[in-house]
Amino acid sequence: MRTTPHGPPTPDFQPLLDEIAAALRPQAGQQGKVASYIPALARVNAAQFGIALRTCEGAEAAAGDCDTPFSIQSVSKLFSLTMCLQLIGEALWQRVGREPSGNPFNSLVQLESEHGLPRNPFINAGAIAVADRLVSQGRSAGDLAAMLSDLAGTAIEIDEEVAASEAATGFRNHALANFMKSFGKIDNDVAPVLELYFRQCALRMNCRQLARAAGYLCRDGGHPGGGATPVLTERQARRVNALMLTCGTYDMAGEFAFLIGLPCKSGVGGGIVAVVPDRLTLSVWSPALDASGNSWLGMRALEMFVARTGLSVF
Amino acid sequence: MRTTPHGPPTPDFQPLLDEIAAALRPQAGQQGKVASYIPALARVNAAQFGIALRTCEGAEAAAGDCDTPFSIQSVSKLFSLTMCLQLIGEALWQRVGREPSGNPFNSLVQLESEHGLPRNPFINAGAIAVADRLVSQGRSAGDLAAMLSDLAGTAIEIDEEVAASEAATGFRNHALANFMKSFGKIDNDVAPVLELYFRQCALRMNCRQLARAAGYLCRDGGHPGGGATPVLTERQARRVNALMLTCGTYDMAGEFAFLIGLPCKSGVGGGIVAVVPDRLTLSVWSPALDASGNSWLGMRALEMFVARTGLSVF
Amino acid sequence: MRTTPHGPPTPDFQPLLDEIAAALRPQAGQQGKVASYIPALARVNAAQFGIALRTCEGAEAAAGDCDTPFSIQSVSKLFSLTMCLQLIGEALWQRVGREPSGNPFNSLVQLESEHGLPRNPFINAGAIAVADRLVSQGRSAGDLAAMLSDLAGTAIEIDEEVAASEAATGFRNHALANFMKSFGKIDNDVAPVLELYFRQCALRMNCRQLARAAGYLCRDGGHPGGGATPVLTERQARRVNALMLTCGTYDMAGEFAFLIGLPCKSGVGGGIVAVVPDRLTLSVWSPALDASGNSWLGMRALEMFVARTGLSVF
Amino acid sequence: MRTTPHGPPTPDFQPLLDEIAAALRPQAGQQGKVASYIPALARVNAAQFGIALRTCEGAEAAAGDCDTPFSIQSVSKLFSLTMCLQLIGEALWQRVGREPSGNPFNSLVQLESEHGLPRNPFINAGAIAVADRLVSQGRSAGDLAAMLSDLAGTAIEIDEEVAASEAATGFRNHALANFMKSFGKIDNDVAPVLELYFRQCALRMNCRQLARAAGYLCRDGGHPGGGATPVLTERQARRVNALMLTCGTYDMAGEFAFLIGLPCKSGVGGGIVAVVPDRLTLSVWSPALDASGNSWLGMRALEMFVARTGLSVF
Repeated sequence: MRTTPHGPPTPDFQPLLDEIAAALRPQAGQQGKVASYIPALARVNAAQFGIALRTCEGAEAAAGDCDTPFSIQSVSKLFSLTMCLQLIGEALWQRVGREPSGNPFNSLVQLESEHGLPRNPFINAGAIAVADRLVSQGRSAGDLAAMLSDLAGTAIEIDEEVAASEAATGFRNHALANFMKSFGKIDNDVAPVLELYFRQCALRMNCRQLARAAGYLCRDGGHPGGGATPVLTERQARRVNALMLTCGTYDMAGEFAFLIGLPCKSGVGGGIVAVVPDRLTLSVWSPALDASGNSWLGMRALEMFVARTGLSVF
Repeated sequence: MRTTPHGPPTPDFQPLLDEIAAALRPQAGQQGKVASYIPALARVNAAQFGIALRTCEGAEAAAGDCDTPFSIQSVSKLFSLTMCLQLIGEALWQRVGREPSGNPFNSLVQLESEHGLPRNPFINAGAIAVADRLVSQGRSAGDLAAMLSDLAGTAIEIDEEVAASEAATGFRNHALANFMKSFGKIDNDVAPVLELYFRQCALRMNCRQLARAAGYLCRDGGHPGGGATPVLTERQARRVNALMLTCGTYDMAGEFAFLIGLPCKSGVGGGIVAVVPDRLTLSVWSPALDASGNSWLGMRALEMFVARTGLSVF
Repeated sequence: MRTTPHGPPTPDFQPLLDEIAAALRPQAGQQGKVASYIPALARVNAAQFGIALRTCEGAEAAAGDCDTPFSIQSVSKLFSLTMCLQLIGEALWQRVGREPSGNPFNSLVQLESEHGLPRNPFINAGAIAVADRLVSQGRSAGDLAAMLSDLAGTAIEIDEEVAASEAATGFRNHALANFMKSFGKIDNDVAPVLELYFRQCALRMNCRQLARAAGYLCRDGGHPGGGATPVLTERQARRVNALMLTCGTYDMAGEFAFLIGLPCKSGVGGGIVAVVPDRLTLSVWSPALDASGNSWLGMRALEMFVARTGLSVF
Repeated sequence: MRTTPHGPPTPDFQPLLDEIAAALRPQAGQQGKVASYIPALARVNAAQFGIALRTCEGAEAAAGDCDTPFSIQSVSKLFSLTMCLQLIGEALWQRVGREPSGNPFNSLVQLESEHGLPRNPFINAGAIAVADRLVSQGRSAGDLAAMLSDLAGTAIEIDEEVAASEAATGFRNHALANFMKSFGKIDNDVAPVLELYFRQCALRMNCRQLARAAGYLCRDGGHPGGGATPVLTERQARRVNALMLTCGTYDMAGEFAFLIGLPCKSGVGGGIVAVVPDRLTLSVWSPALDASGNSWLGMRALEMFVARTGLSVF
């Protein structure tokens, strides 16, 4: 909320994260299933749980497997969207919408009935459309890694084995890209667009890095490391939060809003980034997913965090 | 936000509402179209605009045609949901979901593929499912009018002409109700369920009454008039707000979140209720609708209010 | 085929039908399931099988339970279409299409995307549209019974218990009718249209009567009993056969064409009428249905008949 | 029909084809539009019309632009299906269905809801599935050209310019192939499968050659040139005819059956092949298409032919 520049002093969140990790980490891997569509994801040990946060003021707290890197997968869509807004701003919305997609079944139906315009930047088709915009701007997945390295204050890398596996098995994404191109909604050749997309999904980060890198979302777009140049304008940051809340968690956006009440973006690597506007960003990770593709234990952790702090946007 | 019990003193919103009314009321009816599917709505003068708010502390402000009653239509879904939660709580969710529906085209497709379970309580199918639950609890549209009269502190009535017209022309709603019943998802006869539904849509209120009646949504469920019995629990109120944000404005939930950033519920009578959690409820009205069925000028007013106050949940 | 007015002499089909009945009747009820959505259908003994045919020249043959009456259900759509073509001819096609519907899932999707125009007269929505046309012409299900009595040369009646059960449980048909009416594609009140529809489905006939009554379809529209007035024009009869082949057997039209190669119309009572143009009409009955709603043993009987006689249109 | 081995003597069709060409050729190009998605098709002169037939006995007749070669496009699906049945027979049906697809909108929806199994071999997805089977059998588009050369008794070639254009612009077909592969329904790499598919669509033939090459379909599968080895078994030929009638003409299968009553396969090059079982095969060509992608004048020619000869399967 923009109106509380001088809110109450930030509490120390370390005890709470310790408590959450103590309560949940023993359950890691007991429910849900690790993504298995590529070997590099399938062999991740399910019995892991990490959590980290960073407040607007720069205080940090972390617990559990908060330093273990994982494949951020769809969480990367948050950052490719951010880079795209930096580069072309509102023009992006000519190629991608801002509405929830309803359900997975709809992705291709909607693409067809809406003439190749994806519903939002967080479904696969939408992220591919964003990747096409980035290619047109001369950007690559390496540039995303560089942006994240700057935001997190530490080197972020692409797991090339994961990227290669994604490319070798991503037939549905090839289908989506070609389908959009058949509607004239992809400008570049499909190959470089998908290369960027598959490589961005293969970025590796840990919870601590994710909480830092996404810090601009709780700071009205300001650089989380205190850099002079804002990452996004205040209005853009607020709108990215809105998109996360309505579209950021696959087909569970309503459920996340209902149960957790924070803007979130999840990935099938088991990571979730959540934002408490004007307060903090939070990152949780546990590899086992529920049927909707969201980290099962990650959701539990977010529910627990909100229940204990009362920090929800509603 | 739950964490600011003693926030900054409430500003006086009257000057701002006066300013918004002065700026927008002259535009009323210049864009958009008044709902025309029944005569009683079609003959409403488009050149009207009202706005009203009530803070958690009970301060009120209002401007424009804030005392002119209008047909609340789908805004009533907020109140039937509220009554249903009072009566059966979580059991409601066995009959209706909590996810955005994607788009209007999908309503019947989704009902079919999801075996008669509507996506959320704010699409027509979902509100009919709620009405069925109310009938099973012995409630009628008159009980809703009584609840609203209590909340608003003044008598709220049903426009029987509108109710009769809705019933006489509501073939699609008849289709939805029968379709759900074919899946065993409606317990009662279709006739009394639709009678309740058509009559709740025909409730007449003005902006001032709406802002008051919905006051529990910014007060953690507490009675807006200071009654001892809460309208909803704090958790329920927070969740209704989440549903409003993700599902409350037809196919424009993403757009409302993106542009306005507040939980809203709109109706084709041209009314919109918005909630700033822990701060205030706001009601706007102008009869001319955009293509999505939301009040065109009402949306402008909400954008203006948020831009001027910074009051958004993001 | 129109070009063989003096084809080879009609063979005596009685031995073949005896053979088919001897081979198949013992299997009756061993595969498939009797329709169970209303009691009057559910209690039919599955272990029954009947077959009957009538050549263009008037020769008849029949075997098995060929004299046991059953509920003709969707086979009635053939006769309501016929009556409608008699009354309004080509004008019918303003209210119903002539294309296969794809699959059951599509029925409501297609109705929605095609603005309430059903795909063909043999899906439920299409038959309801035909019923609306009949009501507009002052016709009732009783008139259909009278037409069938004339065609079959014996009194055909409506099973009022079945009709009442259909009406009491036919919520999906209520949904379809109201949905079409919401698009302005049904002129009359839904109630009398559905009354005609539910009562036509409850007509009771046996195989012998069905083979006789549908005799005009192999005789270029000529009255099967030799009446002076044709039932349909030659062109109409040929086109009804085409509709039967492409749309007459629920979602199995392709499979029927592929395996059997004759125009057919089936019903969930277990009856199927088949036409060999210029040669004969054939009727089979066995109550147990396969998953697509067609009589399992009836299909076997038709395959056997075609394999033995070589009588296929292809 | 299998039962008339010694039917009436074949009439001389040359006068009728002359008459049809005289009546229709002057109208060529006056209605409909030439396919324009690739330059090589777009520049075809619309003012052309050809017709040719060949009886089971080997008599031929032809008129108009019957010797002008054109791109057979989807008519090739008839021949790839035939080659596939020769090679793997019934096993093909594990990869493609036999039901009409409903409508174009559905193609991707159906592929999704039916887990990558295309509805029938005549929609694009189905023909790509057939191409995958051919690649697995070591076949190429060149083998199809060789088969057609043998059937037509004259060299048939592939227009490599058309093939290259199809490949360069066929994004939707790339989408379909990748989508099916994502369901495990395509065994080979997408590239060679699509190469075969795009090159088969680029086969060039004239009406006379087409009528000859498809001659096995009216001769119970027997080689049209009298070769000793049948092209298909009698049962296979009959079933291909059934598929043509129910699925051969895009979304107009019902309309073709209703108006023309013959198994047909059309292509966007403007060609149509029709079969009168046991009598003759017929080929028409005129480049301008109606909205459904079928040759507008070709359909008129077929209607005229059937009206004058009475040769319909119904």
